[in-house]
Amino acid sequence: MRTIEWDDDRDCIVMVDQTKLPGEYTTYHAETIPQLVESIRRLRVRGAPALGAAGAFGVALAARRNEAATFDDYADAVAADAESVANARPTAVNLSREVETVLSELRACTSIPEARERTLAAATDVADADVERNERLGGNGAALLSDGETVMTHCNAGALATVDWGTALGVVYSAQEAGKEISVIANETRPLNQGSRITTVELQQRDVDVTLIPDNASGLCMQEGMVDAVVVGADRIVLDGGERFGDQGVVFNKIGTYKQAVMADRHGVPFVVAAPHSTVDTERSADEVEIEERDPDELREIYGTRNAPEGTAVYNPAFDPTPMELVDYLVTETGVYEPPLDRTTFEAAERTPA
Amino acid sequence: MRTIEWDDDRDCIVMVDQTKLPGEYTTYHAETIPQLVESIRRLRVRGAPALGAAGAFGVALAARRNEAATFDDYADAVAADAESVANARPTAVNLSREVETVLSELRACTSIPEARERTLAAATDVADADVERNERLGGNGAALLSDGETVMTHCNAGALATVDWGTALGVVYSAQEAGKEISVIANETRPLNQGSRITTVELQQRDVDVTLIPDNASGLCMQEGMVDAVVVGADRIVLDGGERFGDQGVVFNKIGTYKQAVMADRHGVPFVVAAPHSTVDTERSADEVEIEERDPDELREIYGTRNAPEGTAVYNPAFDPTPMELVDYLVTETGVYEPPLDRTTFEAAERTPA
Repeated sequence: MRTIEWDDDRDCIVMVDQTKLPGEYTTYHAETIPQLVESIRRLRVRGAPALGAAGAFGVALAARRNEAATFDDYADAVAADAESVANARPTAVNLSREVETVLSELRACTSIPEARERTLAAATDVADADVERNERLGGNGAALLSDGETVMTHCNAGALATVDWGTALGVVYSAQEAGKEISVIANETRPLNQGSRITTVELQQRDVDVTLIPDNASGLCMQEGMVDAVVVGADRIVLDGGERFGDQGVVFNKIGTYKQAVMADRHGVPFVVAAPHSTVDTERSADEVEIEERDPDELREIYGTRNAPEGTAVYNPAFDPTPMELVDYLVTETGVYEPPLDRTTFEAAERTPA
Repeated sequence: MRTIEWDDDRDCIVMVDQTKLPGEYTTYHAETIPQLVESIRRLRVRGAPALGAAGAFGVALAARRNEAATFDDYADAVAADAESVANARPTAVNLSREVETVLSELRACTSIPEARERTLAAATDVADADVERNERLGGNGAALLSDGETVMTHCNAGALATVDWGTALGVVYSAQEAGKEISVIANETRPLNQGSRITTVELQQRDVDVTLIPDNASGLCMQEGMVDAVVVGADRIVLDGGERFGDQGVVFNKIGTYKQAVMADRHGVPFVVAAPHSTVDTERSADEVEIEERDPDELREIYGTRNAPEGTAVYNPAFDPTPMELVDYLVTETGVYEPPLDRTTFEAAERTPA
């Protein structure tokens, strides 16, 4: 199944419950808006593209479950539900963007039955578009990999971060589909361990050979010649590096990505960023991107067991910036780009539907 | 108290029980050889210099508890006990070396009472010598730090890895003693989390300001200008880099050290290795140093909770090699050396008691 989709039988949302990984691979049905909001907050579903689909299906869920007597009351109630979904995680731009996509479809309707049908169709389109985009992206990136190579990846930019196929791991799946045997070294990705908890699971499900390492071992792996390419996703890419990085663009991705990029550079290993075009922010400079600091208890405790003395001071940034000078290839659904990015070409590609 | 010492009242070994950290700071009394062996195996006491003292006191414990009727039987029994202590962790060279130091003292004795006394005196000398050596080392290294600076460290090369004072952290304590205010950024140090479990505890006990970070955040910290020096310990230093590193020496230390050194180099942050002279192996080349691979379950589980699917392939090397070109200063009890190391000077210093 997909990471998140519509269950026609139960007329509700069904998702892989990622809070249960790696212990159990189970699904969770969100039949109400509060259940969906709680699922987003608790990270049952995570990853920017998957959250976009969650938002889209959320509006459809509200539209199909609401029993208001008049269309006006109905539309108001669905909009209120939509807002609570959009705000479940305020930093994920895809979530609110796709809530709005489906809500604008509802605004064009004139009856409740029509709205019930069209919102679900629109949400399904959002989900399908994500999968198609990732498959195109994967196909573009696969050309960079040769049979028998080993890819190192950081965090989880795979099927479980998207509706399906994934971005960084989509490149691996597309290469595999093209008949190339690719192995993966998965960094554990402290402090939330998405590499060990999620990336291993989805690679094993797709019969990709995967070896888990502590983040600390990635330098040694490169020294030992075990890595042919590093492929990671991106949370946001800016083309203007601001004060710290100047002219060059910057990739914001899971904390530790910068260290991987520096190690890859030192060892002559290609460093590949795989992300949809929508990740590229052509407006903002790196200076304007705030790096989210997460709960200190993510370090002080692990799985509920004390890992550092109570009250220990912690610095726990979720992302770090990698300057484009360290990026060899940027792979999107429109092609493979070699930084420094030519802003004009890149923006033109963005406007052209691939 | 020291990490490990002799308890005169109970006539046995007492140690800080490091398996209880960071939850509890408690002591464990080893009153029998099996208790001591189990303590070493379970890492109640760890760190090469601390294990040396454990071995030394172990022979004293055997000598003081054995009740054989004749001196010959007694000496044989103590030697057998000593062997079981020396083999408790076969890779720690200090352990077997200091067992031998005290055992040779026993061989010079002619009566049981004399042996009981002289073995304990010899073991105490081993422990005292470690503390004195670390204090000299710390004093030498402290000159590299200025008031108000922040040191990043990896793993635990502190008081709790030695009998007292520590090596890398000894440099910080000596700087503090000299009136300089030094802050520390402690890397968590996956997979065994010595940074979060042990380094934080001992720094807090000595009123040193410490901030814990995930290993993944160390690059960002340097990018943000938060780090004035990286100071780490060493498990083994070789002067001959072998095939991979050629002419230059190599520092073997806890996995992840190499990445820290590369990041420090990129950001112009001094990278300091603090280790006693006995760590320098002038015989072997880097090619002859085997990197210990540890249990895959250290990654598959954390504190007993599943962290990756059962049976997931894991690469879990305990150490990595850092070439001397990345080391700015090597601090020992005899002085501060700037690599590349002049073998003649360095070996001469080693032969000169400091």
